Amino acid sequence: MLDVALLGTGGMMPLPNRFLTAFAVRQNGRILLIDCGEGTQVTQKMLGWGFKTVDVICLTHFHADHAAGIPGFLLSMANSDKGDPLTIIGPVGTEYIVKSLLVIAKDLPFEINFVELPYEKKTYHINQGGFSIGALPVSHGVPCFAYSVSLARIGKFNADAAKSLGLPVRFWGILQRGENVSYEGLEYTPDMVLGASRAGLKVTYCTDSRPIPSISDFAQNSDLFVCEGLYGDPALSAKAAEHRHMTYKEAANIAKRANVSEMWLTHYSPSVTNPKEFLGVARDIFPNTHTGFDRKTATLKFSEDE
Amino acid sequence: MLDVALLGTGGMMPLPNRFLTAFAVRQNGRILLIDCGEGTQVTQKMLGWGFKTVDVICLTHFHADHAAGIPGFLLSMANSDKGDPLTIIGPVGTEYIVKSLLVIAKDLPFEINFVELPYEKKTYHINQGGFSIGALPVSHGVPCFAYSVSLARIGKFNADAAKSLGLPVRFWGILQRGENVSYEGLEYTPDMVLGASRAGLKVTYCTDSRPIPSISDFAQNSDLFVCEGLYGDPALSAKAAEHRHMTYKEAANIAKRANVSEMWLTHYSPSVTNPKEFLGVARDIFPNTHTGFDRKTATLKFSEDE
Repeated sequence: MLDVALLGTGGMMPLPNRFLTAFAVRQNGRILLIDCGEGTQVTQKMLGWGFKTVDVICLTHFHADHAAGIPGFLLSMANSDKGDPLTIIGPVGTEYIVKSLLVIAKDLPFEINFVELPYEKKTYHINQGGFSIGALPVSHGVPCFAYSVSLARIGKFNADAAKSLGLPVRFWGILQRGENVSYEGLEYTPDMVLGASRAGLKVTYCTDSRPIPSISDFAQNSDLFVCEGLYGDPALSAKAAEHRHMTYKEAANIAKRANVSEMWLTHYSPSVTNPKEFLGVARDIFPNTHTGFDRKTATLKFSEDE
Repeated sequence: MLDVALLGTGGMMPLPNRFLTAFAVRQNGRILLIDCGEGTQVTQKMLGWGFKTVDVICLTHFHADHAAGIPGFLLSMANSDKGDPLTIIGPVGTEYIVKSLLVIAKDLPFEINFVELPYEKKTYHINQGGFSIGALPVSHGVPCFAYSVSLARIGKFNADAAKSLGLPVRFWGILQRGENVSYEGLEYTPDMVLGASRAGLKVTYCTDSRPIPSISDFAQNSDLFVCEGLYGDPALSAKAAEHRHMTYKEAANIAKRANVSEMWLTHYSPSVTNPKEFLGVARDIFPNTHTGFDRKTATLKFSEDE
C-alpha cells in the first residue's frame, strides 16, 4: 500500500490557495517527498502526515518553485524531534544548493546524506529509506529528473507446498517475508513456498519537462502518473515549449503511451485559475485524467484479484 | 501619509492562516519591506500592493522565519517587471546570506544594493529610496536590528509672509515643496514662507529581541509601534527570556516608556492560537495595544490640528 498526496500544485508562483510544487509518498508510515516549494511546511501541516517520518526528499531540479521551502521544511522536521538521517536526492549540485539555502537554518539535529545524480541519458535505481526509487533525466533546459516510487509484491503463499516440505508452521511466516530458514541442517528459501511475483505498485512523478519519449517508458504501467500541465489551453502550446514545459494534451499523450492507470495534472501556471477548464482536452486522449489540487490524496492498493 | 501592513505575524513556524514575519510601509506609492518570511510573496499578493514598487527590504536578522521568503519574493518582483534597483539592508553578512538564498533564483532583472550594518551600540540613520530609516541593534543572541521609518513634515505655509516677499504666486508651490527659488537676481528659501517644522510620522518595528531599554528610546513618540509578543501568557516569560524573545507584557512596558500612540503585537509563537487571549495583560500596562494579524493595515496621517 502506498499513500500519496499532492502538497502543492502551483508552478512558478504560488496563489493564495495553491502552494508551490511538492508531492509526498508514504509507505509503511515513512515519507518520501518530491520537491519542496515555498509553503510546503504549511500544506504538510494541513495534511497532517507530520514531519518526523520524512526520510527522503527528491529534488527534480533547482528552480525556486521546487526548492525554496527546504529551510522551513527542515526546521519543521527539527521541531518534530526528528533525529534519524534525511537523504536528499537530486541532480549534481544538490548538496551545494541545499547547504546554501540552509545558511538560515543551521544546527539541524539530524544528519543529511546527499545522493547526486549525474545528468546522463540513463535511468537510476536507488534504494533509500526503504523506498525503491527510479530517476529519469528529463528535458527542462537545466538538469531535471522525473521520479518513480515502486513497491514490489511477492508471490502468493502456497500452503500445500509449505506442508509438503515438512517444515513446522512457525517458520512459514519467515519464508513468506522473503527470508531464508535453516532447520535441521537444511536450507529453505522463499521461492519454495511462494508463487510467481505479482504486480506491485508504482507511482511516477514528472515535472518540469518537455514531453520526451523516455518519460512514457519510465512511467510504463504506473498505477498513478502525476504530470505537469502548465497550461490547459492548447493555444498556449508554443509558450509551453518555449519555457520547456508541457500542456495537458502533451501530458495525456504520455499517459496513454505509458499505459498508466490514472493521471493527475499538477504544476499549473498562475494564469490557470480553473484547472478543470481544459480537462476535456486531456480526457479526449487519456480518459482517466484528473486535475490535481493541494492535498489531494489517494491510497494505492495491491489488486485483490490475484 | 504612511500606509502600513503586517504581511505575516507568525514566529518560528507558519500556521495555515498565519504567514511568517513581514511588515510593509508604503510612502508615495513606494514600498519598504521589513523581513520576508516564507510565504511573504503570497500574502503580499493577497494584500494587493504589488511587487514592482518595492524599493527597500530591511532584514532584522537571518533566522529562517524572517528570511526564507526572499527567493520567491524577488522572483515575484522580477515577474512584475521591476527594473529599478532594490536595496537590502541588514546586519553584516546580509549580502552573503541573500546571495546564498538566491542560488535558486538567478538572473533577476534588477540590481541589488546591499547596506550592511555593523552590530555596534549605536543607532543608524539611513536614507534609501526616499525612506528615512532608523536601525537599532537589539538583543536576540545573534546580530539583530529594530527599524523605524520616519516621514518629516515641513512647517505650515504662511501666505502673508509669501505676499510680503513680493514673489509671484507661481513660485509659492516650489518653496512649499522645500526647494529654493531664484527670481530677478534674488534667492528665496523655503524657511521664508514656512513656519516651524511640525510633528511628522514615525513607525517602529521591533522583533526579535529581549526588552532592552534602548528600544524605548528608539521608538520614542512613534505613531505606531509594532512589537513582537511571542507569548501572551505571563507564565511563559522565562521561556521567552531563554529564547531571547519577549512577552506581551514586556512589549507593553516598552510601548509605555516610549510614549507611542499605538502598539500592534506580532510574531506569535505557533502555540499562540488565539492572540487576543492575553491582550488584557498588555492593555493593563499600555491601553492602546492591539493584536496584529496577517494583512492588518493602517494609514498614518499627519495630525490636522496644526
